[in-house]
Amino acid sequence: MRSFAGRDILSLKGFERNEFMHLFEIADRVEPIARGRQTSDLLAHKIMVTAFYQPSTRTRLAHESAMNRLGGRVNGFSDAKMTRAGDFYQESIKDTVHMLEFYGDVIVMRHFQQGAPHEAAKWASIPVINGGDGWGEHPTQVLTDLYTITKEMGSVDGKSILAIGDHRMRTMHSLGYALSQFDAEMVILAPEDMSPLPEFLAELDEMGTNYRIVDHVNDAIEDADVIYMEPVVQPDYTLSRDDVPEDYSMTPPEYQVTAEVMKKAKSSSIVLHSLPRMDELLEEVDHTRHARYWEEAYNGVVMRMALLTSVLGSWE
Amino acid sequence: MRSFAGRDILSLKGFERNEFMHLFEIADRVEPIARGRQTSDLLAHKIMVTAFYQPSTRTRLAHESAMNRLGGRVNGFSDAKMTRAGDFYQESIKDTVHMLEFYGDVIVMRHFQQGAPHEAAKWASIPVINGGDGWGEHPTQVLTDLYTITKEMGSVDGKSILAIGDHRMRTMHSLGYALSQFDAEMVILAPEDMSPLPEFLAELDEMGTNYRIVDHVNDAIEDADVIYMEPVVQPDYTLSRDDVPEDYSMTPPEYQVTAEVMKKAKSSSIVLHSLPRMDELLEEVDHTRHARYWEEAYNGVVMRMALLTSVLGSWE
Amino acid sequence: MRSFAGRDILSLKGFERNEFMHLFEIADRVEPIARGRQTSDLLAHKIMVTAFYQPSTRTRLAHESAMNRLGGRVNGFSDAKMTRAGDFYQESIKDTVHMLEFYGDVIVMRHFQQGAPHEAAKWASIPVINGGDGWGEHPTQVLTDLYTITKEMGSVDGKSILAIGDHRMRTMHSLGYALSQFDAEMVILAPEDMSPLPEFLAELDEMGTNYRIVDHVNDAIEDADVIYMEPVVQPDYTLSRDDVPEDYSMTPPEYQVTAEVMKKAKSSSIVLHSLPRMDELLEEVDHTRHARYWEEAYNGVVMRMALLTSVLGSWE
Repeated sequence: MRSFAGRDILSLKGFERNEFMHLFEIADRVEPIARGRQTSDLLAHKIMVTAFYQPSTRTRLAHESAMNRLGGRVNGFSDAKMTRAGDFYQESIKDTVHMLEFYGDVIVMRHFQQGAPHEAAKWASIPVINGGDGWGEHPTQVLTDLYTITKEMGSVDGKSILAIGDHRMRTMHSLGYALSQFDAEMVILAPEDMSPLPEFLAELDEMGTNYRIVDHVNDAIEDADVIYMEPVVQPDYTLSRDDVPEDYSMTPPEYQVTAEVMKKAKSSSIVLHSLPRMDELLEEVDHTRHARYWEEAYNGVVMRMALLTSVLGSWE
Repeated sequence: MRSFAGRDILSLKGFERNEFMHLFEIADRVEPIARGRQTSDLLAHKIMVTAFYQPSTRTRLAHESAMNRLGGRVNGFSDAKMTRAGDFYQESIKDTVHMLEFYGDVIVMRHFQQGAPHEAAKWASIPVINGGDGWGEHPTQVLTDLYTITKEMGSVDGKSILAIGDHRMRTMHSLGYALSQFDAEMVILAPEDMSPLPEFLAELDEMGTNYRIVDHVNDAIEDADVIYMEPVVQPDYTLSRDDVPEDYSMTPPEYQVTAEVMKKAKSSSIVLHSLPRMDELLEEVDHTRHARYWEEAYNGVVMRMALLTSVLGSWE
Repeated sequence: MRSFAGRDILSLKGFERNEFMHLFEIADRVEPIARGRQTSDLLAHKIMVTAFYQPSTRTRLAHESAMNRLGGRVNGFSDAKMTRAGDFYQESIKDTVHMLEFYGDVIVMRHFQQGAPHEAAKWASIPVINGGDGWGEHPTQVLTDLYTITKEMGSVDGKSILAIGDHRMRTMHSLGYALSQFDAEMVILAPEDMSPLPEFLAELDEMGTNYRIVDHVNDAIEDADVIYMEPVVQPDYTLSRDDVPEDYSMTPPEYQVTAEVMKKAKSSSIVLHSLPRMDELLEEVDHTRHARYWEEAYNGVVMRMALLTSVLGSWE
C-alpha cells in the first residue's frame, strides 16, 4: 500500500481497496478519543490550515474537532469574504498556496471551483485535503459514509446502495468512484435534469462500478441495504423564510423518503444523509430504526482524525 | 446542592442561593489563572463549541478566553452567515445539535430566538450554556454581574440595585430571577414602552423578588448601592456614523447616568454596565470612583472559567 | 537596548539599529520551529488577541501561526462586522480595549483608521502590536522584509532599495523610517498622485534616511539591489471578475516589473512583494532567480514568532 504520509487527499478515483480498509482500521483505533473517553496528543505541534472559500459547517468543524481532539492546532479562514483573497482581483491559487503552506502542516480546502484543491496541491509543499470542490468531489465525506456502513452493517461488500439526489453533485461522484473497490451495487435515482453526466457513467463503466438507474423510490426501496441521500432541489434563495407556505413541499414524492416509504424497506436497511436536509428526508424517519445519519455525523470526526493522522505521518 | 457536572445553564430561574455561592467560590479560586499569574491545564483535552447565531464580542470572547486560559480548545462559528445553518432552509435546532454535540464537550449558544438554547439542550448529549437568547435570558452575564457585586461590595445581600434600561431585555430577566435568592431590592427604571412585561412581574412576585418601579434616575439614585445599566434605545441603523449630529443625545435624561447624577449617589455605590454603551452612560463617569464596568468585563472571563470547569465536571 | 518585554510595536519611527539586529537574531533562533522541524511550547498559556477591523489574510494568519507554533493560543475577531464593535454606534477604542485586554496577553490590531493601535496602546495594560493602521504604518511587515533582505543578501547595509508603488501606503512609511538606521538608499518610484507626502519626506530628511526619487523603472533597475513592490492602483471593485478584458493591464509600464525588466537588473538583485499582487509584478518573474517573495511570506511567520516571544518576555 502506498504510504498516506505526505499524501494529498483530492479524489477517491484511484483509491485502492486496501487503502479504504487501512483508514477504517485507524478510524476504529482513534474512535475512543473522538468522544473524549481517551485523550491524545498525537498531533501536538501540528497545525491544520483551513481554506474555506465557501461556507461550511460540518466539513470544517469536523476537521477542526478532529485536530483539537488530537492536540493539534487550527489556523485559517472560514469565508473568503473575510480575507483579501476574496478581493475582486482574486489572487491565483498558486499565490495563495505559497502563503498557506507556511502557516501549517496540512491544508483543508473547500472551493466553489472544481479542481481548485488539485491546483493547490500542485504548488503546496504540505498535503492538501479536498473539503469539497464545486461539482467535483467530496472524498472525506464519502470516506465517512463508507466507514459508517462498515461499522453499522459489517461491510460495504454485498450491499445495494440506493443513492437518491442530484447526481451531478460531488458526493455522488466520490461515491461512484469509491464503490469500484467494493462488491456493491450503486442504484441511481435522480430527477432527469439532475441525472449523472454521461462522462461520469463512462468512468464508472471503465472502473467497474456496478450501477443501475431507477425512476422512483418505490421501485428500488425493497432491495436497498443503504439509502444514501442528497437534496434533489436547490433552495430558492429569493424567498424569505416567512414567504414559504407551510404545506410547501419542494421534493417530488419519487425522491422523498418518508416513514411510509421506509415500511417497504428491508428490516436491516439504513438511511444515510450528510445533512443539512430539506424535505427530501422527513423528520419522522428519525424515529425509525433505519436512521443512521447522526452516527454518520459523529463518524465525520472519527474519519477526519484517521485521515489527518495518516497524512501527517503520525502512524508511521 | 445539585451537581453542576453535565448540567445545562439556560436560565437563572430556579437557581438556588447555594449554587450562586458555589460558583462565586470557584470563581475566586480560578481568578489568578484569568490574569495569567498562574497557569492551568484543568480543561486540557476539553473542547467548547461556540454556536453564535448573532454577532457578539464580549460573550463569545470571554468564553473563548476562559477555555484557553484553562488549556481547553474552541471550535465553532461566530456568525450564522458563515455556515450553511444560515441558509434559507435553515435547519432545525435538532439537526444542528446532532452535529455540534460531536464536535466538543460543551456548547455555548447565542440565538436571536428566545428558547433556542433550551431546545438545543433537549437534544444534546453534552451541556448547553445559554449565551443570550433573543428577549429571553442571559444567565452567564448576570452571574458575572452578581459576582462583581460580591467582590466589590462584600455581598449582594442588603443592596438596593437600580436597574436602568430596557426591561424587556434578557439581562433584566436573569437579574430579576436571580435576585429572588438574595436579600436585595430591584429598583426598576425604564421608559414606558420598555417597561417590564406584566407576566415577568408576576413571576417576580411568585418567586419573592423584592422590586419597585421608579420614573426618574434622580428619584432613585440616592438610595442605590448598585446602578445596573443597559441601553434604553435601540440604535438606528439607517443612519451612518457621519450623519449623526455631534450633540445628538439619544437617551432621555431620566435614564442617563452622568458625573452630575453620580454626585447625588451614595459614596459607596458602584456602576455596572455589560457594554457596549451608547450615551446612557457618559464617559465622564469612568473617572469617578463609582465605575466598576472594567472590573465587570474582567470578571466575565473569571465567571466563565468557573462555569465551564463546573459543567465539565473538572472540580469533582 | 530597551527591553522588548511588555513593549508596544506601533511604529518603526524611533526603532534603533540594535533593536532591529536583536529581532533578526531571535528570528534566526526560532526559525527551525516555524517549519515544524523543532517543536516548542515557549508561549504555552499565552494568549494573543486578534482585533482585525479590516480583512487580512497574511498578517492575521502569520501571527496566528506564530502563536500556534510556539504553543500559544489565539482569541479574537477577523472582521468587525462579526462583532458588536462593528455596530453603527461603534464603541470607542478605549471601551473596546478595556475588554480585549482581559482576554489575553498581547493584542494585534489592524484598523482602517490611522493611529487606532496607538490609541489602543494608551489604554491597554498588555502590549499592542500594530497590524496595519490605515495610511499609517505596518511595522511587522517591514521587519519581515528587512529580515528577508538580511537573510538573502547578508545585510541591509550597502543596499539600494527601489521601492515601487503607492508611496502614501503604510509599508512605505515604515520602510522609510526603518532605513534611517541602515547604510542604505531608498529609491522612490510612484505615479504622481501616489507620491510620498511632503511631510513624510521631511521626516526622512530629519531622520537621515538616504532617498532619491525616480520616474521610470528602467531608470533605476540597473542600480537596485532590492526591488520592493506594492500595487500602484487600487482595484476597481465596481467591476466583476468576468467584466475585465483579458488583455486589461492596470499598471502603467513605468511601474511594472516583468521578466524583460529584470534582464536589466543586477545579477544579484532580489524582488520582494508583500502580496497579494495585481499586475504590477507578472507571474513570469516567479521563475527568475530574483524572486524572493515566497521566502518573504515564510519569514512573515518567523518574524512574528520573534516579535511575540520578545514582547511577551519569553526570552528574558
